[in-house]
This record gives sequence, C-alpha cells and structure tokens, in this order.
Amino acid sequence: MGDKVVIALGGNAILQPNQEATYENQLENVRKSAEIIARIIASGHSVVVTHGNGPQVGNILRQNEEAKHVVPALPLDVCSAESQGFIGYMMEQTLRNELVKLGKTNPVVGVLTQTEVSNDDPDFQDPSKPIGVFYSEEEAQQLAEEKGWIVKEDAGRGWRRVVASPEPKSIIGSEVIKSLTDAGTTVIAAGGGGVPVVKQADNTFKGIEAVIDKDRSGFKLAEEAKADRFMILTDVENVYVNYGKPDQKALTEITLEEAKQYVAEGQFSAGSMGPKMEAAINFAETGGRAIICSLDKADLAMEGKSGTHIVG
Amino acid sequence: MGDKVVIALGGNAILQPNQEATYENQLENVRKSAEIIARIIASGHSVVVTHGNGPQVGNILRQNEEAKHVVPALPLDVCSAESQGFIGYMMEQTLRNELVKLGKTNPVVGVLTQTEVSNDDPDFQDPSKPIGVFYSEEEAQQLAEEKGWIVKEDAGRGWRRVVASPEPKSIIGSEVIKSLTDAGTTVIAAGGGGVPVVKQADNTFKGIEAVIDKDRSGFKLAEEAKADRFMILTDVENVYVNYGKPDQKALTEITLEEAKQYVAEGQFSAGSMGPKMEAAINFAETGGRAIICSLDKADLAMEGKSGTHIVG
Repeated sequence: MGDKVVIALGGNAILQPNQEATYENQLENVRKSAEIIARIIASGHSVVVTHGNGPQVGNILRQNEEAKHVVPALPLDVCSAESQGFIGYMMEQTLRNELVKLGKTNPVVGVLTQTEVSNDDPDFQDPSKPIGVFYSEEEAQQLAEEKGWIVKEDAGRGWRRVVASPEPKSIIGSEVIKSLTDAGTTVIAAGGGGVPVVKQADNTFKGIEAVIDKDRSGFKLAEEAKADRFMILTDVENVYVNYGKPDQKALTEITLEEAKQYVAEGQFSAGSMGPKMEAAINFAETGGRAIICSLDKADLAMEGKSGTHIVG
Repeated sequence: MGDKVVIALGGNAILQPNQEATYENQLENVRKSAEIIARIIASGHSVVVTHGNGPQVGNILRQNEEAKHVVPALPLDVCSAESQGFIGYMMEQTLRNELVKLGKTNPVVGVLTQTEVSNDDPDFQDPSKPIGVFYSEEEAQQLAEEKGWIVKEDAGRGWRRVVASPEPKSIIGSEVIKSLTDAGTTVIAAGGGGVPVVKQADNTFKGIEAVIDKDRSGFKLAEEAKADRFMILTDVENVYVNYGKPDQKALTEITLEEAKQYVAEGQFSAGSMGPKMEAAINFAETGGRAIICSLDKADLAMEGKSGTHIVG
C-alpha cells in the first residue's frame, strides 16, 4: 500500500514563460508532467494533483476585457473557475492517457473546488497582487471608480488592477476528495488555489474577487485530505541555503526545526522559495513529510532519491 | 432511502433567451433551479445534475474570437471544458447554499467530465450544428481553408462554423460519479454533454471539436450511474400529443410502448421535444422511470404529481 500524496504543480508545468500560450504548447507541457505523475500513481501511491493558474486566468481576463463590448465580462472568481475547467480537462485527459500507456486503468477525476477565505483577512485591506491587463492611468482611475477596483502603478509598465491574496481557511468538499483518494481515484483539485469564497451571516458562501496561492491551498488540501506527503514541484532539484555564496548547500533531508531555523535566518526569498518553504513547514507540522523538488525528478523524489525533504 | 435521479437542466435554467448574459442574471437563474433541486435532495433522493452550455460556450468562443490578436484562441473542446468550470461553479455553490437554507450539509461536488464519441459517427460526415459568431462569406471561406472548418450560410444572417453533434458512447469516469452518488454526494457532471473525446489506436483519448446533446449524454450518465430515474427539465409541465389540435392531450403517465407509438406517429418536433422523448425512451428501456417536466415543478414531479412519466 503506497502513500497518499498531494502534488502541487507550478505554473511552468503548464506554460513556460517564453512560450506562446497556444493550446498545443500547454497540452504538451501538461502531458510531460502527467507522464511523471503517472509513474508515481503506477507505483502504488494515491495522488491528488493541484496546480497554479496564473497565465491561464490572466488570458481569460484578457479575453473578457477584449470582448466586453459584446459579452458582459465575468468576475475574477468565475474566470478562475473557467481556468479550473480548462486546466483540469488537460490534466484529467493526459493523466489517464499516461496511465493507459503504463497498462493502468486507475480512474482520474477533476473536481471543481471552492476555497474558503475570510472576509476579515488583512490582505483585503491592502491588496497587492496585480492581475489582468495594463491600463493608462486615466482608464485605470475610471475603472476604479466604476467597478470599485483598486488599481496601482506597476513598475513603470502601466496601471493594473490589484487584488488580495488571502490565506485559505478550508477547502470546500475536501471530505469528498479524501474519500475519492482513499478509494484509489486520482483527483485533480483546488486548481489555481480553488475559487475563493467567503462565508456569509447565514452560512451560505459567495464568490469573492481574489487570488489564492496554490502552495498555501495545497497545504490545506494535504492537511484536510489527510495526506502522508505534500510535494511542491519547482524548477530546481533542491532548496539551497547560502545561495550564491561560497558555502552554498543543497538541502536533502532536514528536520522541521532546521527548516524553521533557515527561515528565521532569512535564507529564502519572499517572492519564490519563501512561500513554498512556509507551506512545506506547515505541512511537516502536521506530522507528514513535505518535499520540494523538481518536476522532472518527482518520481525519484517519491523514492527519497531527489529533492529537499522536511520531516516533522 | 430515496431514489437515485439524474436531472438534466435545459439552457433556460441558466440564461433566458431575452436576458443579457451578465453573471448576476445567470447566477440568479441557477440559484432558482438549485432551490428546487435542493428540495429533492433534502427529501432523501440522490441527485446527479447535468446541464446544457449553449449560450455560455457561445460566449466563450466569442471572447476567444475577439481576443485572438492577443491571446491564441482555444479549440471548441477546451472552451466547453471552461464552460463546465463556469456553470459547475455556480451550481456547486448555489446547491450547497440552498441545502444549507434547508438545514442540510450534504456534500456537493462538480466533476469535470469527458464523453467518448466515435470518430466514425455519421454526424462527422455532415456536421450541421452552428456554433460561434457570424462571418461574411469571404471571412468564412478563409477560416475554412486556414483551420479546416466546415462553414455554412445560416438563414440569411451570415456564415457560421458548423460542427458535428455525435452520439455519446460513454461517460468517462461514470464509475466514480456512481460511487459518489451511492455515498450520498450530490454530483454535477457531464455539463454541456461532457467534453467530446475520441479513442485513438493506443486506447488514449483526444479532444475533438464537436458538441454533444445534453439529453443524450444525460441518458448515458443515468444508465451508467445506474439511476432509478432520469428527469429532463423543460419549460412545459407536460409532453403533449395532438398539440394545438382540438383533441390535444397532456401526457401524465405512459408506458414505453405508448411512448414509442407516439414517436412513430410523428407527434414530437425534431428540434425540441423529439430528442427529449428519444432520450427518455432510451432510459425507460433500461427499466427506469423517465420524467419530462417543468423546472419549477420538478419536486412535485418527483412525487408523481406533475410531469410526463414514462415507465418501462
């Protein structure tokens, strides 16, 4: 009996920064990721795949913007749901296909996922995550007035809408995802971090225009689905300390205490490895094994032969 | 213990023909449908909801078309997957909310669904389902050449792309949908008929640009998920025979043989009630109860107090 593992795929697993966003490019990238994940499933592990959606939801927003004179533009949460459909379809299809190539017929299912965030999350007070297209200052100010958007100047490139990136509180339907994986079904879930929703006074949920970090929601998913491991896939084989210095060191297996110590030393950048380490540490706190590794060696990392492992 | 029922929602349950396609309008329509379906769930039945996507996928295609100078346009099957994300999110959220209002916490989950069709389906030889925007003859012929589209003149309104509407062969993952409903989870599945895929020589699947009739795929879903009932929701309370004639009659409960006799008499129009009766008869053949009824009386129809029932 294998382990239950939640695998978080980065945006590059779907579209490389230098590639054109054609369907063919994205499908081929996803297929390559699926090839590696299928090997993990075929070796007996139960897998939940979660993924980012930055470039895809950005393009859907752009399409909404370009077509708004003929089709009313949809809110960000709905665009995010559309991106779950888009990416989930590619993953469901390619994972199933790659399993078939290995002689396996394990079921694979994509689950539309909402993620609860709090209305009181401090990030709503000072949103900073830029999304969508660039505007002139005049257009931006007009949109801010019309739609209640918050807009900011973006590094001399123009004005953009900014939204909050609140902390995920819970993955709605994680009990269903858990039972599916317990029964051996591969699940694709919480794509793009899940569609952000807030609880209202009467306990019903309502969509909110925000983005959720997929490593943070991946941790929540791994915790709630009671995974044994949480694996964050990146472009690098290991996490480094003293990066770029003479004593730089690739981390292989470290304890929770060592991981926290490195964070306290400021070893990891806020924009990239920092949030991944935070999510990994949060998961290791629950007693599981957190792994940060490269996509193309994820199967080796599952065998303990690659990646940085944090053990609780 | 209640029955297992697959409920197929028509396009009007999401957007009325005279309404603007704003998110607010669509969400409120879906909420109203969810209110009625929640009553059926709360009374103890297991429910799978399936739905059309015509206006929504049309708008996504339009957005792709309008933005193609900045974002590469996605194929039809991918747009259909996006519409599953969009509509599935609204349904998942509103169904859960309406259940909460009834004091219920039953899980609700939207499942991204692919539907297998055959490459040899005769409809691929003579596609006739118009999709997307109107073009001038010149533009249409150019697109036909560039992209291999089949284009046709549409009732004097301009030229449009036409695609096939093949027969669904099977719902991929229906065994997972069945096990979820067996465990009491409400499932939203095979939205827009499911994303059409064809099996290749090596048993892998590939998306294909086509549309699938949601009542036909709803029947397949009901058959494969071993539903007790298949309910097709429309705008009318009953199916009529001799419609518009002095001896017009609303059908309440009829046998499979009577239903087939009425079809043989040509009682139902090919464009509207005909396909619904065909799907209902196909389901009744499997031994289940097929119901064609109005959305706003679906809960009464479950109690046998409304609608046209066909029993095998």
